[in-house]
Parts: sequence; structure tokens; C-alpha cells
Amino acid sequence: MKTIFISGTAGSGKSSLTSKLIDYYTKNGAFTAAVNLDPGVESLPYTCDIDVRDYVDMISIMQQYELGPNGALVMANDLIASKIDDIQNEINRINPDYLIVDTPGQIELFAYRSSGKFLVENISSDEKTSIFLFDGALITTPVNFVSISLLATSIRLRLNLPTINVVTKTDLIGERIKDILKWSTSLSTLENAIAKDTDGDTYSLTTNILRGLNLGGFAQGLIPISNETGEGLVNLEGAMSRILNLGEEVED
Amino acid sequence: MKTIFISGTAGSGKSSLTSKLIDYYTKNGAFTAAVNLDPGVESLPYTCDIDVRDYVDMISIMQQYELGPNGALVMANDLIASKIDDIQNEINRINPDYLIVDTPGQIELFAYRSSGKFLVENISSDEKTSIFLFDGALITTPVNFVSISLLATSIRLRLNLPTINVVTKTDLIGERIKDILKWSTSLSTLENAIAKDTDGDTYSLTTNILRGLNLGGFAQGLIPISNETGEGLVNLEGAMSRILNLGEEVED
Repeated sequence: MKTIFISGTAGSGKSSLTSKLIDYYTKNGAFTAAVNLDPGVESLPYTCDIDVRDYVDMISIMQQYELGPNGALVMANDLIASKIDDIQNEINRINPDYLIVDTPGQIELFAYRSSGKFLVENISSDEKTSIFLFDGALITTPVNFVSISLLATSIRLRLNLPTINVVTKTDLIGERIKDILKWSTSLSTLENAIAKDTDGDTYSLTTNILRGLNLGGFAQGLIPISNETGEGLVNLEGAMSRILNLGEEVED
Repeated sequence: MKTIFISGTAGSGKSSLTSKLIDYYTKNGAFTAAVNLDPGVESLPYTCDIDVRDYVDMISIMQQYELGPNGALVMANDLIASKIDDIQNEINRINPDYLIVDTPGQIELFAYRSSGKFLVENISSDEKTSIFLFDGALITTPVNFVSISLLATSIRLRLNLPTINVVTKTDLIGERIKDILKWSTSLSTLENAIAKDTDGDTYSLTTNILRGLNLGGFAQGLIPISNETGEGLVNLEGAMSRILNLGEEVED
């Protein structure tokens, strides 16, 4: 079994991509299952095989502990970690080729509380990878691009998984995707864009950070995806395949 | 009027610090008011002068739009930005020396959706500063320290405000604060700690990022604070004063 964790900021398209990946792998003859880790989600564009909402009920938590929505979300996320054995048993029973894990809407509940890292470390799987979604609509200015890149790198360090960076919503941002991809591969282009866009202090802070990140090559190979049209999915599958199957492609 | 935005991950101590700062400034004879920007918070350890819960009601939003807690939090945060004129009128009516703005529990609702940045840009004030809280309990390993530092830098770029970095919960982490402060001022000490703590890939990624960040001096002057004992508040006030009052201290 190979496990794929989908993370990204609220509204970046995690559940849509989960749905697209299930279709993609299923069409290619692989047995694929999906896990929803978000206790507070209302509706999902795919059928979950494993759903944490079966284990924790937000409305009961709000009532029972007299918590507001914030407190209940935090508590529910922490409770889920205590259900890891039940979740693992469900996974073992299904035993898919690919397990796609759709993480909570608010990324920090998954990435910065200990429960998320605990789940990432404790779900047993032959190989694991993480896909981080750069919300296309958020990164149309160069400083926001750097800001989300820092967030992506922060989460990569927290989760400590091989990570594929993806830009979503390419159908919404038109020609801007060309700039974004240039920024992700050419430090000088990105620095020039920042210079045009900002004052002196932000420019020096941003470019100094960038030079360090660039050494690590963190935004190399940023993959553009439209969840609307499905464009880019083949490239994403190739990148995942290199991590999960040590070079084999998914069977046709 | 000087405005101070308090941000940090969920549970890092934003509301506690807001409460401590109100006490501190008030004792020193400054007229201080607090704004709560979190529509989903249950209870606060201070009396709000301006409370977004007066403008948006989470429970009504959940019922009226048939949303779960996630969706309602996102919608409520976006609605708040549309109330900026009313909020500004309330601020003008109170007209404090210091306005302390306690931001939403989930940091990404404030930092990565457009409503937070809109509020930061549009509240009119003579000077503005941001305090970012490093949750002491989260940064006791060197890689987590780097991860939260990246998040802090990401948010600093998003908000584009002069920022003071603070470590909270120093009363909980004992001697570990000494290591954290060494990591924040000596790159070689931090790199050695990471080398002991991680495998080769994480080590090279992390140290490359660090070298870039260090050029920007981002974690210089990290200020330790205990919201429990109040230790460190004087240092924090000094740092804020240098930004907000161009060197004047608050009146005694």
C-alpha cells in the first residue's frame, strides 16, 4: 500500500484533488481508497472509505463540552489521534493499492498540533508521500508566492515526508501561471518581480530568504493542476510514481 | 493611536498575552482598548471593547447557510472584513492610546485569507506593529523551531508589518528556553542541534533554508514571555516601544 497525504491552506482544493486522484487511479486499474481526516467538513466531492466523522461528532463535542466551533475543531482533531488503531484496522480491512488522505480544512490543525504528525508517522504503509497545494488564487503576487512557499517548506519540515508541490486553480488564473512557474525556477526573475512590487525592507527580507530556500531547491518542479479540467494530473501522477513506486508507472 | 496585532498558532497564548498587555499598559497610565477578531472563540480572559462576535454569529451562520464549523468559520472571517467601517467607527469613538488586536484562533483564517490582510491594511492608526507568538511547547526540537520560524516569516511577509517575535509558555519548558534562544542567535549552534536530531536529507534541507533566513536576521531578538508569571513583558514593551513610539517609552 502507498499512502498520499493531501495538504494545503483552507480552500486550496484538497478535497477536489482527492476526488480527481481517486478517479485517475481507479481508471488505471489501481484499487484506491480515500480517508477524510476533517471532522468539521460538511460535504465532500467523493465517497470516503474511511471517515473520521464516524469517530468524532463536532456537534456533540460542542454541546457536551460547551465549546465553540474553534475549541471543538481543536478537540476533535486531538481525539482523532486516539482512534489511530481503529482507523488502521479499517485501512487493513480495505487494503488498497493507494490510500489518499484528505487532511483538515484548516492546515494548522493538521500540521502544527501533535495529532497530525502522529497520524502521519503511525499509519503503516509501504511508502508515503505528501502533496502540498499552492492555492493558485493566492500566489499571483511574488511576495505571496514566497509566503506560501515558506508555509509549504515549514509543513514539509513538520511532516518530514517526500513532498510534491502543486499549484491548483490554473483554470482561474490565466496567463499568471506562466509568471508563477518562472518565479519557481528562476531566482533572478522572482527577485526582479519582487523589486517591482515592494518597498526596500520587504525586498531585502524576501530576497535574503529566497536565496537560502533556493539552495534547498524547494520550489523546483512545481506542478500546475486544474481540478476543474483535470489538466496536469498526468504530470502529478508521474511525480508521485517516482516517489512511491521507485520509478514504476501505475499499471494500465 | 498605536495598533498592536497579536498572531500565532492556535493555543500559542494570543488571548492571554492580550490580557497581560492591557494590564501592563493600563498600569502605566496608557488608555488601552482590545479588539477580538475571532468569531468562533467561546470565552476570553479580558473584557473586549470591540468584539466581532457582535457583528457575526457563528451559530446563526451554521444554521442559515447549512454550514459545518469549518465553513462557518471561513464565512464569518470573510464577513468581518465587510464590517470594517463599523469596526473603525467603534475604534474612533473609543480612541485609545493603544489598540490591541487579538486575531483568530486558527492563524490561517487571519493570515492567508484576504480578509485578515484587508483589516491590517485598513484599520487607520498612527503606527502598527505585529507580535508573532512562537508557542514554547511546540519549538523544543530544533526542526520544529525552524518550521515555526518559517511560518512566522511567511506571516510577516503576508501582513507586511514590523514584527516582534515572542516565545510563550517559558514557565512550561524549563531549561529548554536556553537552547531555543541559542538557536535563535547562533546559526552554528542550531545547525549542530539539527545534525544530532535528524537524518541527512532533513539536515541539508533545513540548514540550507536557515542560511538564507539568517541573512535576513529574522529570529534575532526572540523575546521569552511567560503569560503565567508575566516574566518578559517589560522586554516586550521595550521592543514595541521602539517601533511604535520611535524610541519614547510609555508614560509612567
